[in-house]
Amino acid sequence: MKNYNKTRIIYVGKVPVGGNHPVSVQSMTNTDTRDIHATIAQIRRLIEAGCEIIRVAVPDMDAANAISVIKNAISIPIIADIHFDWRLAIKSIEKGADAIRINPGNIGGYEKLQKVVQKAKEFYIPIRVGVNSGSLEKDIREKYGVTPEGLVESALRNVAMIVDMGYENLKISLKSSDVLTTIKAYRLISQKTDFPLHLGVTEAGGLVPGTVKSSVALGSLLMDGIGDTMRVSLTRDPEEEIYVGYEILRATGLRKRGPEIISCPTCGRCEINLFNLADEIEKRVKTIKVPLKLAVMGCVVNGPGEAREADLGVAGGKGIGIIFKGEKILKKVSEENLINEFWEEVQKLIDEKESNNK
Amino acid sequence: MKNYNKTRIIYVGKVPVGGNHPVSVQSMTNTDTRDIHATIAQIRRLIEAGCEIIRVAVPDMDAANAISVIKNAISIPIIADIHFDWRLAIKSIEKGADAIRINPGNIGGYEKLQKVVQKAKEFYIPIRVGVNSGSLEKDIREKYGVTPEGLVESALRNVAMIVDMGYENLKISLKSSDVLTTIKAYRLISQKTDFPLHLGVTEAGGLVPGTVKSSVALGSLLMDGIGDTMRVSLTRDPEEEIYVGYEILRATGLRKRGPEIISCPTCGRCEINLFNLADEIEKRVKTIKVPLKLAVMGCVVNGPGEAREADLGVAGGKGIGIIFKGEKILKKVSEENLINEFWEEVQKLIDEKESNNK
Repeated sequence: MKNYNKTRIIYVGKVPVGGNHPVSVQSMTNTDTRDIHATIAQIRRLIEAGCEIIRVAVPDMDAANAISVIKNAISIPIIADIHFDWRLAIKSIEKGADAIRINPGNIGGYEKLQKVVQKAKEFYIPIRVGVNSGSLEKDIREKYGVTPEGLVESALRNVAMIVDMGYENLKISLKSSDVLTTIKAYRLISQKTDFPLHLGVTEAGGLVPGTVKSSVALGSLLMDGIGDTMRVSLTRDPEEEIYVGYEILRATGLRKRGPEIISCPTCGRCEINLFNLADEIEKRVKTIKVPLKLAVMGCVVNGPGEAREADLGVAGGKGIGIIFKGEKILKKVSEENLINEFWEEVQKLIDEKESNNK
Repeated sequence: MKNYNKTRIIYVGKVPVGGNHPVSVQSMTNTDTRDIHATIAQIRRLIEAGCEIIRVAVPDMDAANAISVIKNAISIPIIADIHFDWRLAIKSIEKGADAIRINPGNIGGYEKLQKVVQKAKEFYIPIRVGVNSGSLEKDIREKYGVTPEGLVESALRNVAMIVDMGYENLKISLKSSDVLTTIKAYRLISQKTDFPLHLGVTEAGGLVPGTVKSSVALGSLLMDGIGDTMRVSLTRDPEEEIYVGYEILRATGLRKRGPEIISCPTCGRCEINLFNLADEIEKRVKTIKVPLKLAVMGCVVNGPGEAREADLGVAGGKGIGIIFKGEKILKKVSEENLINEFWEEVQKLIDEKESNNK
């Protein structure tokens, strides 16, 4: 069986999704959408963090009406997330949403869906057909249970319904809170359709369990060439979702944003406060967009030898530290000056890299 | 090509590694090994967190001598981690180490290695042949570069050398700080040997990047049936390594320890402080060892419907919350009583499950 690794291309606002385009990183606001100021402020923070597409919940007409003002104030496309009430979808589209996300199964039946599709067609904006393991149609649940096959059947049925209505500007998501179900469902559907796929594990949980679940599921799919856009879902500030999203893309070799820090876990050999040093460096590099590889090592065992592939590194000794570049030691400095001296070298390197790129 | 999914079985102390035995979760202390009290205290905390095998750094003779006292005070096997000095390996074995980890390439040549192997044989303790991308032999680096093939060649050469010395009580690790190199190296070696494999990504970094890298690499390998024991490496308190390790095993469907919390990321629909609620529940469940699935949901959209597979769940409304079990609503409570009422139900459920298991 063939994977449709090369999916069709759709556009969410100006962002291409599908084909050979880079896997885009999305998030969803958790502000009250009707609180326009708070929502805009959060989206701007998310953009700084690297968010490329933003979704907002539209639970009522006031939220739908807020979309036009929010959209005007931000530089990335906005997706309206709608459940139950088809009129909210219509209003969101009229107010300028760059796409809508619906679960066709809960929008109120065939005729309501038709009206929504008609309106999306009129404004030529994509629809994400978002199926969730928690809300499968009754007949599918009876036939398949909550299984990958059931998720795929539900999505394909809904997509076929919309295609029959004459609209193909679509992407698909199949979400489950279970990692193995998620992986199997996306693998299966990628063999059956070439519509672009939005990846995610739903209700993944807090920072650590949510990051693990998203990394295992999305990592595995992305390495198989499956997935065109993604959202990491965490019970946390959405900026963390963006951070984790890019780390998954980096780990799978697909995209790099900003520096990578390799740092050792420390052990009985370590004689400096490496955790503070690594934390401080992690904080400082968050504003840097140039891809760099920095090493923060506790001792000489893991020092310049193990970390020679880093652009720049620091390794601890007894109350001192060395700063190295490849296998070459640049300088030895006292522990209290280590962070500043290292940071100076990082700045130099960034300047070098940036002038090389000119 | 065949994966040796079924590896040979070795014993690290009383813990079987390989074959169909569960993938064990290890960590490494970051205390000064010579500080016996601090090291024992850290290992005891790690055991509480679920650590099954512990490794300690042995940088000098005092550290090697400390092993016997530490070993007597703990209930899990202890591995001595040795670099450069073969005499530290000999001493660690004599002091009761349940296994040693060496990188045969840096232990001082063939004859020194032979002495170490002879001593391990005498005490019948396993040797982990631990190859790292940062310390490949020069000829291998020249021939292969720092590649998966180079890592595998180095490991197999060292293993063959020890097998030729008449000792086969071995396990292998191939560590790189790069996720794709790690995955390829372990896949390759799993086709070429049936010695048990210790999985890990080295110098993975801080909590988020380190968790992502370990989850993508170990997740992918474990789902392919590769890996017999594992250590997540984080620049963090080692207890976090254990926590992440078990989350990876849970996500890949291999092992469950304690409750799983599925929780939504919240959105504009959420009218209660879900982050606090989820954090508080996450904290409270850390002491529970019974596997449970708990749902913490912001609103009715994701409420009992989406989370019906949970054993017990809570969903927010406007200043109130509902507590549900499957699709059945147990009670409605005010936001301030939510955590305590929910916790009461959790306790009841645990009692039920435990009495069923008797």
